[in-house]
Amino acid sequence: TRIALLAGDGIGPEVTEQARRVLTVVRPDLEFVEALVGGAAYRVSGHPLPPETLDIARNSAAILFGAVGDFSLDTLPRELRPEQAILGLRRELDLFANLRPAIVWPALADASSLKPEIVAGLDILIIRELTGDIYFGQPKGIAINAAGLREGHDTMRYDEAQIARVAHVAFQAAEKRSKRVTSVDKANVLETMQLWRDVVIEVSRDYPGIALDHMYVDNAAMQLVKNPKAFDVILTGNMFGDILSDQASMLTGSIGMLPSASLNADSLGLYEPIHGSAPDIAGQDAANPLATILSAAMLLRHSLADEAGAVRIESAVEAALASGARTRDLGGKMGCTAMGDAVLAAL
Amino acid sequence: TRIALLAGDGIGPEVTEQARRVLTVVRPDLEFVEALVGGAAYRVSGHPLPPETLDIARNSAAILFGAVGDFSLDTLPRELRPEQAILGLRRELDLFANLRPAIVWPALADASSLKPEIVAGLDILIIRELTGDIYFGQPKGIAINAAGLREGHDTMRYDEAQIARVAHVAFQAAEKRSKRVTSVDKANVLETMQLWRDVVIEVSRDYPGIALDHMYVDNAAMQLVKNPKAFDVILTGNMFGDILSDQASMLTGSIGMLPSASLNADSLGLYEPIHGSAPDIAGQDAANPLATILSAAMLLRHSLADEAGAVRIESAVEAALASGARTRDLGGKMGCTAMGDAVLAAL
Ligand SMILES: CC(C)[C@H](C(=O)O)[C@@H](O)C(=O)O
Ligand SMILES: CC(C)[C@H](C(=O)O)[C@@H](O)C(=O)O
Repeated sequence: TRIALLAGDGIGPEVTEQARRVLTVVRPDLEFVEALVGGAAYRVSGHPLPPETLDIARNSAAILFGAVGDFSLDTLPRELRPEQAILGLRRELDLFANLRPAIVWPALADASSLKPEIVAGLDILIIRELTGDIYFGQPKGIAINAAGLREGHDTMRYDEAQIARVAHVAFQAAEKRSKRVTSVDKANVLETMQLWRDVVIEVSRDYPGIALDHMYVDNAAMQLVKNPKAFDVILTGNMFGDILSDQASMLTGSIGMLPSASLNADSLGLYEPIHGSAPDIAGQDAANPLATILSAAMLLRHSLADEAGAVRIESAVEAALASGARTRDLGGKMGCTAMGDAVLAAL
Repeated sequence: TRIALLAGDGIGPEVTEQARRVLTVVRPDLEFVEALVGGAAYRVSGHPLPPETLDIARNSAAILFGAVGDFSLDTLPRELRPEQAILGLRRELDLFANLRPAIVWPALADASSLKPEIVAGLDILIIRELTGDIYFGQPKGIAINAAGLREGHDTMRYDEAQIARVAHVAFQAAEKRSKRVTSVDKANVLETMQLWRDVVIEVSRDYPGIALDHMYVDNAAMQLVKNPKAFDVILTGNMFGDILSDQASMLTGSIGMLPSASLNADSLGLYEPIHGSAPDIAGQDAANPLATILSAAMLLRHSLADEAGAVRIESAVEAALASGARTRDLGGKMGCTAMGDAVLAAL
């Protein structure tokens, strides 16, 4: 089984290396094919997502992704910046369903900036649509308007099929959890979000056992601060999901711990830590590889239907934490490789 | 001096009544003209923002606004729902600069869901553009697309003049504070937000004493959880400002305390608490009037250039809190009128 390994920039190579070591032990049958992506690809080939990389990704069972981002390339035209690689992969591979669990690990409950009683036991799953919305809607651009002024425009756009397919993912995920979905929109102001709400309600009729409620995005941002444990599955669009999932991740206090999966309809998926390329600590063996290792667990679960392998990795991470293993972001002194060793030891 | 009093729905009449009592003591020269707005107006006249109300607002020095919102009217066509009243006032009066201070009052530092050391002393000012962006950009609608599917679209749109004028407000506010502005955008994905960033940088050249930095909205949502005190003035667009200002308000733990001002270029302003109409507690003398009383202080400061009057009200609120006055949302037993009495006593 072929896995595309797209390490990317900054700490990407270090953290994916530890995830690869863990995967290799759990699944010796996996074959890893490396490809350049992001700033690393731009420097070699002049493009952040070269055609060879896209081909390798397309022809794999899953993609293990590190991080992209390189401040020194931020002045390039937008289409050549490292972030375009991840946007291009989402679009080209139709990775429409982004699963972002935000979990407070018992060993790390104190790490949050929120009071322990507010976040202890937190376990929410944000499902963010990833291929539509104002990210990809056309038209968009900057032009001179009738008054002779520069004017920028972008288009939020969703059709009912795009909304329905990600809604199904959310309801199906809720069936395996506490059977509640909160759909987040801004239907009081945006037509697109009124359609979002209408379609989510229509899809919900296929899931009579799931309780659905709706929340405006501004209220959701408040409730995530006030009482995040009131949520279980949160379903939302690409733009609001970008904001809310990052907000939610920070509630856990340990952004170095949070994995994500981006899936298409054929169970091809891209798996990446939600943290970025962290250029300030790159190459120093200082990064926390657990978010990437946990992303590898999601890879086994969602793209390879290997629930046992996924649970094995997750249990090993829990055991490593319980034994006191801590990278610097978790208040410890361990390096990236040592943390990988600790997980391997627990396997 | 004429003040339009738009009490609106739910707890709006109760909280504006206390603010009116306070204003009347501090400024006996004010003349209040009441007008219906929101659901209350719809029930009488069939429209949430009747022309008479708009006229009264337009011909006043300032508008003291309660709240709009009435769940039983949520099934009306969008243009007749209560929220359209506030959107209509913003548009018609060109109230482009929304000032939302998020302050943790010493007496209430424990009310937050965040750890006290993270929020104690928090004092940030969010400046949200209020008349452009995806709220008002055209085109927007729901239609059948070429594939025969329902499709929704909305347009994020800003021209350079709209961005520049609110940026000036932010830089001028920063001059009276700690001389730092964080502009929040999503320039890595949205063309409109690239223009936003470009124009904010251009405007910043007029304010060499102010430090400007830029943050993507997803990162801003994270940093507001992780270390909110790192911010001072936050400048952002209408949509992102809606989300971030509500998130920031909840950091303080006392949403019943937070005022806001929405200003146009002629210092006409609308002043309202950031909380909503709270129909569940309406008519029970249970609401906290302090957000509205503090909005009245902002009214004196920004529309009537009466800094002394504003400070007098703010000091009275602080004194009332210091003396132990607490409404139910603050963990006490006081009713809305009694809290008004406490502020009046402190004046
Ligand atoms: C890098 C950026 C384009 C991306 C996004 O906005 O989707 C990132 O913030 C994310 O959430 O994966
Ligand atoms: C009621 C609603 C239209 C409004 C908005 O989205 O601007 C409110 O959330 C606000 O922030 O004042």
